[in-house]
Amino acid sequence: VTGVSIRREVTETSPPELRRDPVAGGWVLLAEERMLRPRAPDPPPPPSDAATCPFCPGRETRTPPEVLAYHDPPGSSCWSLRVVPNLYPALRAEGAAEPRIEGLYERRDGIGAHEVIIESPRHEQDLGDLPGPRIARVLAAVRERMLDLRRDPRIEYVLWFKNRGAAAGATLDHGHSQLIAIPIVPGSVREELERCREHFRSGNRCLFCEMIDQEQSDGRRLVAASGRHLAFAPFASRFPYETWILPRGHAPSFEAGSDDDLEDLAGLLGGVLLRLGRSLGRPAYNLVLHTTPCREPGLDYYHWHLEILPRRTPLAGFEWGSGFHINPTRPEDAARHLREDGP
Amino acid sequence: VTGVSIRREVTETSPPELRRDPVAGGWVLLAEERMLRPRAPDPPPPPSDAATCPFCPGRETRTPPEVLAYHDPPGSSCWSLRVVPNLYPALRAEGAAEPRIEGLYERRDGIGAHEVIIESPRHEQDLGDLPGPRIARVLAAVRERMLDLRRDPRIEYVLWFKNRGAAAGATLDHGHSQLIAIPIVPGSVREELERCREHFRSGNRCLFCEMIDQEQSDGRRLVAASGRHLAFAPFASRFPYETWILPRGHAPSFEAGSDDDLEDLAGLLGGVLLRLGRSLGRPAYNLVLHTTPCREPGLDYYHWHLEILPRRTPLAGFEWGSGFHINPTRPEDAARHLREDGP
Repeated sequence: VTGVSIRREVTETSPPELRRDPVAGGWVLLAEERMLRPRAPDPPPPPSDAATCPFCPGRETRTPPEVLAYHDPPGSSCWSLRVVPNLYPALRAEGAAEPRIEGLYERRDGIGAHEVIIESPRHEQDLGDLPGPRIARVLAAVRERMLDLRRDPRIEYVLWFKNRGAAAGATLDHGHSQLIAIPIVPGSVREELERCREHFRSGNRCLFCEMIDQEQSDGRRLVAASGRHLAFAPFASRFPYETWILPRGHAPSFEAGSDDDLEDLAGLLGGVLLRLGRSLGRPAYNLVLHTTPCREPGLDYYHWHLEILPRRTPLAGFEWGSGFHINPTRPEDAARHLREDGP
Repeated sequence: VTGVSIRREVTETSPPELRRDPVAGGWVLLAEERMLRPRAPDPPPPPSDAATCPFCPGRETRTPPEVLAYHDPPGSSCWSLRVVPNLYPALRAEGAAEPRIEGLYERRDGIGAHEVIIESPRHEQDLGDLPGPRIARVLAAVRERMLDLRRDPRIEYVLWFKNRGAAAGATLDHGHSQLIAIPIVPGSVREELERCREHFRSGNRCLFCEMIDQEQSDGRRLVAASGRHLAFAPFASRFPYETWILPRGHAPSFEAGSDDDLEDLAGLLGGVLLRLGRSLGRPAYNLVLHTTPCREPGLDYYHWHLEILPRRTPLAGFEWGSGFHINPTRPEDAARHLREDGP
């Protein structure tokens, strides 16, 4: 037991709060309740055991009641996917949307929602192990929950992300991803939006549409393609084997996609995760969806995309403080290996 | 041996290259040579052994010849600090400063320098274990090398940072920090500069000077103070126990500090590292210096500062992709614990 956890017990918890960094401009969510969840000892925890996993079938009462479930076959009592509120939510439904200013500082109530998508009843299956139609169901659940969550007028952004493996910040091994609905637009997305708006103003063209053209005609960084989507290693990859997936046609919002779009995307995403698994040996990874803010859905200048960030390098460190990344693997080499490791 | 390292042997290395992300705006250094250094297996490596450590006395020939050394007592043959080029440098001295544009993409030669400051001959001593005058010597070495490195007109920024502990990205246990001299200004610093310039325009006041006033009159986030410097937990702390150290008077460039400034800073920095060690049990941490770009030394609107980022939380993950951080510890609580854990 460390000094911190001893103290924690005698410290009162405060409601979650969003704070804006006046220097960097980004937002931080202070969510003390998360300290009360099963905590990692100093080396990362061992993968959770299927014998005790709260996401495995038969332990449904160990999570809050589900907000969405799919059954397979339809109408049966067997679930194939569940969406549940996080047992240790970082955000709360109650609170005011108005900012509170105190000199240089801005804070807001940490209102919003925090949900977990349990992607499969089988403990050992990760997203990339699922067949295409099952991945499409996960994507459909993301879309359904995003459309529902953004009906709350206080919500400005819904973030879908996945931490896979302890090195990527996962504390449970059972395949899952998370949705966070927040009353602000995250810093990276806000900066992307501004840069894309600027680019559109100067040439009347979506930056991502132009990037897709350049990647397709260049070819060296392409990883895979489907009828409607493209996967490539970004030119300035921050991580070895970083891979982005985008719709080939202009599409600002992921959640506006049709069932056919999701099926096409599912096939490509599954193939990319398979390639990453073959090239890197089932790496830890983060997956983050960048889509439009809830209140700005139909933008000419923005284009949704998925970022897949494998977490293999031990070099993550000073990058947090500088925004400057060192990557030992050229994206052209990563893309070539991933192309070779196809199905 | 993974597929990646097998392939690595047959892949030709390319010279280091800087690439700009057209969407996020930040820079990435692709430095393949770093792949050739002793590589971490998938769980982080055990701390390096004093019996084989290349930074320990008697193994000076296992590093490149030093560019700076201090001896203690002066004139003796015993070194107390060495600065050596990194054996696996991420940057090279040769190359052109001009950018190369290719459609949407910008790249530059990875010119610059990468040096290691070996802070003590004693393997087990970290920066925070040194007495104040020895810390002042480390800071003096940083200043001396920064002033020398920025004489190269191609260099735009010199980054001083320290990764302590495997969880913070350190691959060697012997106390050391690093200097990276690069021909661009890192993304986070560029954004800070712009936000500070904006703030100065609107009120004719340095944002950091104003922040110091607000922190001092508020008091809840103060950690410690010396005659010339102040340490506090920033309002929007991204990490538990994140601590910044700033000069109390307006000072844009760290490297313009006098010997007296460095002595004062050394005392405060040592005290803060001691407090962090007591509160968190010798945590892994990153330390990053933010100072002015080499070609913009005397700015009215910028104020150097040290960021100390303890790496305790297992939650680092999706933050990379979103710029949105979740921190389970309120900076007011962290600051209170650190105040209580003083010398």
